[in-house]
Amino acid sequence: MTLLIEAGPDAARHWQHVLRARDAALDIRLYPDLGDPAEITSLLSWKPPLGLLPQLGSLRLLQCSGAGVDQLLDHPDVTGCLDRGVQIARLVDQGQAHDLATYVLAAALGWYRRMDTYIEQARRGHWQRHFPHPCSAAGRVGVMGLGVMGGTIARAFAACGFQVAGWAAHPARFDGIETYAGREALADFAGQCGVIVCALPLTPDTQGILDAALFERLAQRACLINVGRGGHLDESDLLAWLTSSPESSAVLDVHAAEPLPATHPFWRHPRIVVTPHIGAFASPERVADQILSNHRGAMAGRVPEHRIDLRRGY
Amino acid sequence: MTLLIEAGPDAARHWQHVLRARDAALDIRLYPDLGDPAEITSLLSWKPPLGLLPQLGSLRLLQCSGAGVDQLLDHPDVTGCLDRGVQIARLVDQGQAHDLATYVLAAALGWYRRMDTYIEQARRGHWQRHFPHPCSAAGRVGVMGLGVMGGTIARAFAACGFQVAGWAAHPARFDGIETYAGREALADFAGQCGVIVCALPLTPDTQGILDAALFERLAQRACLINVGRGGHLDESDLLAWLTSSPESSAVLDVHAAEPLPATHPFWRHPRIVVTPHIGAFASPERVADQILSNHRGAMAGRVPEHRIDLRRGY
Repeated sequence: MTLLIEAGPDAARHWQHVLRARDAALDIRLYPDLGDPAEITSLLSWKPPLGLLPQLGSLRLLQCSGAGVDQLLDHPDVTGCLDRGVQIARLVDQGQAHDLATYVLAAALGWYRRMDTYIEQARRGHWQRHFPHPCSAAGRVGVMGLGVMGGTIARAFAACGFQVAGWAAHPARFDGIETYAGREALADFAGQCGVIVCALPLTPDTQGILDAALFERLAQRACLINVGRGGHLDESDLLAWLTSSPESSAVLDVHAAEPLPATHPFWRHPRIVVTPHIGAFASPERVADQILSNHRGAMAGRVPEHRIDLRRGY
Repeated sequence: MTLLIEAGPDAARHWQHVLRARDAALDIRLYPDLGDPAEITSLLSWKPPLGLLPQLGSLRLLQCSGAGVDQLLDHPDVTGCLDRGVQIARLVDQGQAHDLATYVLAAALGWYRRMDTYIEQARRGHWQRHFPHPCSAAGRVGVMGLGVMGGTIARAFAACGFQVAGWAAHPARFDGIETYAGREALADFAGQCGVIVCALPLTPDTQGILDAALFERLAQRACLINVGRGGHLDESDLLAWLTSSPESSAVLDVHAAEPLPATHPFWRHPRIVVTPHIGAFASPERVADQILSNHRGAMAGRVPEHRIDLRRGY
């Protein structure tokens, strides 16, 4: 019963250190030093290198080291894993959801309260007050995705007094949040949102969901925040919307290509803020117990915590 | 039974418009057009011009148009008002508390998630990730003042997953928030705070409370946010702390002199963000009913809603 960790060298050593602190007897190997591959029963990895999974004939658990699993869904080695009964799980970390909420609120509230304008004024020693950005009341905030991530974000906005609407592929209920489900409800959901946040998983159904049809439903001044995946966004529709909506903005933490190429037009667009996929950091300290429990349970035939259902795509 | 409104010309007309929409028969006058001063029973003003109050011999109610009333406590005309039984009330507006929470969270989370660093990096097309600012866990947030304003701020931070501590002059209890009361508990409260927010009323007891003794208790990297009053802050202690603590910052919305003089060193300090007292806007729409009720009640001898107790100073 051996756990193989595949990650960058610093991160892999940190995972090993944190897991060993909880179980000194744990048999851990760090990729690419597999030892006897037949001993490896669990793999901790965000995106296994091509050809690794077929080598691991005794594998019971593929434990994704992140919350999003789209990088596994189209992975050529994963189907073979499923055929031989390997379970796949993702990490769900309430702390990571809070991290993401702090990022989204920093982005949304900085725009809403026009902090960029005040920082610019301060350079000139200029005292001038401005109403918050969507003048109309406190603004309606729309959150796409109502899982652990989106739900935490929605509740944080509600605690700041915003009217919050939520959208998900399947019906969900939250106290104090108006919820919408399915593609046919998307236009109603987005109507008059001043801030819209994408915290969806990337699936064939949600690919390109941030498009012109959605943008045209938003308030006249709106801010798009994407913390889902780059594949959710139609990049040319975004640029066209920002041109036609001169008081709107976007804050993008995820990108179709990462790192975003230095020549990409998003970097220097005056109303796009690009951040380098830092919305949430996986914290080994916070998820160590979940990994250990899934690793031990896989040998006992237990369904892992936060197993992925590939039929739904998340 | 007449209400006199004293405010800037645009604001006064807006107040009149909103109040008239609720009571078309309301007798309203806009300062300086008093008409017969003996008919005026209520005055809506943030800080009555010197000499106005003694002219209003029938006054029953001085309705402050803001939440803070320190500008009335040392006002030379106010003592005379109290001697003849004029009631004083402030406006309490849950929406304004939410406004203030959006400002404080924009300031705190922008610092915590290092948004300024990412905006600077984006100018160079540079992709580099940074841990959130106080690396230690999510950081402890301290909120000074646990009234409507401070309580709303504390709850918003808690919803973002922060460990929140609250301090007030008198004991207060909040679910999920560790509270401290009185000067003797101030050092323990401030210990290891990564973000500290002042949302106190200004009284003789809280004057200068943001001083070197407080700053030295904070975490090594900390951010001070002042949305109380300029008088809470010892300005030279702040500058000394920022010099000795090179990764700390301050976001200041209130100032000893407002507008802050263009030559003041705070404007261009690289780690001070100055905003022009915009944390919360009084919203006529949200408080109109409270003003009308207090105005009518004053003639009937009722104690106004949110009456000020001058013995406590707020």
